[in-house]
Amino acid sequence: MIIDCHGHYTTAPKQLMEYREAQIAHFEDASKPAPKLADMSDDEIRESIENNQLKALRERGADMTIFSPRASGMGHHIGDEAMSKTWTRICNDLIHRVVELFPDNFIGVCQLPQSPGVTIKNSTEELERCVNELGVVGCNLNPDPSGGHWTGPPLTDKAWYPFYEKMVELDVPAMIHVSGSCNPNFHATGAHYINADTSAFMQLIQADLFSDFPDLRFIIPHGGGAVPYHWGRYRGLADMLKKPPLPEHVMRNVYFDTCVYHQPGIDLLFRVIDVDNILFASEMFGAVKGIDPETGHYFDDTKRYIDALDISDEDKNKVFEGNARRVYPRLDAALKKRGR
Amino acid sequence: MIIDCHGHYTTAPKQLMEYREAQIAHFEDASKPAPKLADMSDDEIRESIENNQLKALRERGADMTIFSPRASGMGHHIGDEAMSKTWTRICNDLIHRVVELFPDNFIGVCQLPQSPGVTIKNSTEELERCVNELGVVGCNLNPDPSGGHWTGPPLTDKAWYPFYEKMVELDVPAMIHVSGSCNPNFHATGAHYINADTSAFMQLIQADLFSDFPDLRFIIPHGGGAVPYHWGRYRGLADMLKKPPLPEHVMRNVYFDTCVYHQPGIDLLFRVIDVDNILFASEMFGAVKGIDPETGHYFDDTKRYIDALDISDEDKNKVFEGNARRVYPRLDAALKKRGR
Repeated sequence: MIIDCHGHYTTAPKQLMEYREAQIAHFEDASKPAPKLADMSDDEIRESIENNQLKALRERGADMTIFSPRASGMGHHIGDEAMSKTWTRICNDLIHRVVELFPDNFIGVCQLPQSPGVTIKNSTEELERCVNELGVVGCNLNPDPSGGHWTGPPLTDKAWYPFYEKMVELDVPAMIHVSGSCNPNFHATGAHYINADTSAFMQLIQADLFSDFPDLRFIIPHGGGAVPYHWGRYRGLADMLKKPPLPEHVMRNVYFDTCVYHQPGIDLLFRVIDVDNILFASEMFGAVKGIDPETGHYFDDTKRYIDALDISDEDKNKVFEGNARRVYPRLDAALKKRGR
Repeated sequence: MIIDCHGHYTTAPKQLMEYREAQIAHFEDASKPAPKLADMSDDEIRESIENNQLKALRERGADMTIFSPRASGMGHHIGDEAMSKTWTRICNDLIHRVVELFPDNFIGVCQLPQSPGVTIKNSTEELERCVNELGVVGCNLNPDPSGGHWTGPPLTDKAWYPFYEKMVELDVPAMIHVSGSCNPNFHATGAHYINADTSAFMQLIQADLFSDFPDLRFIIPHGGGAVPYHWGRYRGLADMLKKPPLPEHVMRNVYFDTCVYHQPGIDLLFRVIDVDNILFASEMFGAVKGIDPETGHYFDDTKRYIDALDISDEDKNKVFEGNARRVYPRLDAALKKRGR
């Protein structure tokens, strides 16, 4: 089967954004009405998925998406901790409804109630709830809850450790994924996302996080940011920093997805990164929604690029399925339970 | 001939750093002695170059380096405007001494007296001095003088326009190059540099700077950051933002260098970026100083990667010489004056 490890619910019924707008308005001016999430029928949710992600999934020949709330909508930099908590629960519960309606095609990953300056410890509770009660198989961890100002500590700082302990205990990986940018220097999907991927990887090189957490697993999305293109630079920097070679220092615990929207980029990714570290993903519908005039196909139809690779069927199976089942053991267990 | 468009004076005699340390100490505590630059003999400067950059230039088979002060040493986030001005003049004057001693092998590019929150207008004076009195052929423009906090406006903001007017008037390009990072999230050469390259390019996509300045020219170093690897993403984002295709919207004015430290990265760069937009560079001795155990050669010996490309001699000449002479007209004029 073919598992897309990176999809966001960017097509949720409008009640969700209406709630969010009211929530922000009320936070900014308490005299505005308190937000209330209007009812959404199962049919509305079905329609929002069937006409969008599920349609594309089928058309493109994939089977399943590891599905999480809209990343740019997480908005950890907006409001305060209480607001982030409420919003996060709503978004995660909505993902759960999608998964309940389409159990063969979607499985959940949760967002976290992060907030700038608030300890990540406070996110462990929501992770536990989502794993134990909603059956999610992973989480999206925002390395910069400030939304482009990078005011918090690097991912390797001990401040993050309580959360990593919980991840290891629950045996779930995290995708390192920022949200929107409130810094005019950084376009969200064109700069902030890619910079975060690159920065996170370099933070991991500088420290020894995986000595402390040998079972911790991170997915760095968008093809690993700039890292594969500059793989020589990163190998050289690890050496200058007197770290072990990257395969043992970082790549036992880090995976890149295939959200790279052209054939030459995918070719490079597979040329430099071990196939065991690559997970199929398209992030549809996400950053780039259009059709590539050079190919006549959607930019984010990344399966086509992988199909075009001259690699063995065994390697394709790893990228499309095996690696995801290994990195997300709870996905593997859920699939096995369903006889898949 | 073979021109390396990106070299920094990272091997300057120790008097330079001693001055800088004293300058910072005095700024932080006025009771400390005022800094004074100790004399440097021509021999000291000669030695610092002959045993390093010039030796490598010869060994690697290149002829000339477009040479600027150490980028991570610019330190625009340290001190205040007056301190940045003094430091900048000293660094630029030292580059001039190198160029005077080795006129066949080095030509200068200047750093600028930027400082967070200080108008870039104040840098035009130093640019004029360096161009008119020291014969520099370009400048390094820091898109984030805050050193990793990105507190200033994007490069396309009108605040930068007075400087661009001066650049066009003097007919000099700018390399978009940050300095060190004081943000623990960003390793200087492993994250901040690459992020800045990526962010700058995306800023240029979002705006219409080159409609206002059709003759402005930027070099985005380090192979264009993450951009070539994600070329599909950027083509798609330009389309979503209703901008013209990248070749007309941005690539008439933007050039990428070849500071990409492995063959697969260089192969990708040449596969997706027009050869007219690529300038040979190695940034030696810069970010990555070691030998690649996979090849037995220095990571930053980028000429080897280009030599290995299956491209025509005409294209190689463009990358090694022609494009640089076109992008830096004052370099071309200086070379012609010397009969080269």
